[in-house]
Amino acid sequence: MTDAAAHPAVALDDIVHQRVRLGILVMLAEIPECAFATLRDELRLTNGNLNRHVQVLADAGLVTVTKGYQSNRPRTWLKLTRDGRRALHAELHALAQLTTRISTADLSDDEQT
Amino acid sequence: MTDAAAHPAVALDDIVHQRVRLGILVMLAEIPECAFATLRDELRLTNGNLNRHVQVLADAGLVTVTKGYQSNRPRTWLKLTRDGRRALHAELHALAQLTTRISTADLSDDEQT
Repeated sequence: MTDAAAHPAVALDDIVHQRVRLGILVMLAEIPECAFATLRDELRLTNGNLNRHVQVLADAGLVTVTKGYQSNRPRTWLKLTRDGRRALHAELHALAQLTTRISTADLSDDEQT
Repeated sequence: MTDAAAHPAVALDDIVHQRVRLGILVMLAEIPECAFATLRDELRLTNGNLNRHVQVLADAGLVTVTKGYQSNRPRTWLKLTRDGRRALHAELHALAQLTTRISTADLSDDEQT
């Protein structure tokens, strides 16, 4: 079987597709420079959990992390890199390929299962 | 912050969203009764990896596993349950909510990052 015949699910990248990381990337596409605390609260995460996923994204070069101060309190900001933007674009493309394979009709509750 | 304000990424369910499992569910929506070997080959998985993810989906009541014989050789078939169909529908809805928050323009390479 050639790669051309692979199911579109094969094109999904775990680094980007994972639920929390996908949420982070989508939020950073919406908010160009986003505070760590904003991401944590909107995505209903703990500091530790968000930290772990941000580290994975930073290691992959998809986000940058900037530490600084705001009103004398330490703050962390996150930003999508150009590679992060590309990776998110590829994920959205792969998801579209995947979801167009099934129509809503296929998932109707009326069918006997 | 109320749940109504939660980011759509919060609505994604890890059981369904995980890359391999999402691939399995989408394939079962396309092929009503699918052979284990077909899923394994199309999704580029090993027997062990597919087995592990099928177990998670079966434990959650989203797929049924039927063992039998075809031409005297043992075969395993998988089928989406009604709950599996609903869960996949909910995932597609959550993904649509998520992806409509960012337009392709937001991800253009022309932007300075």
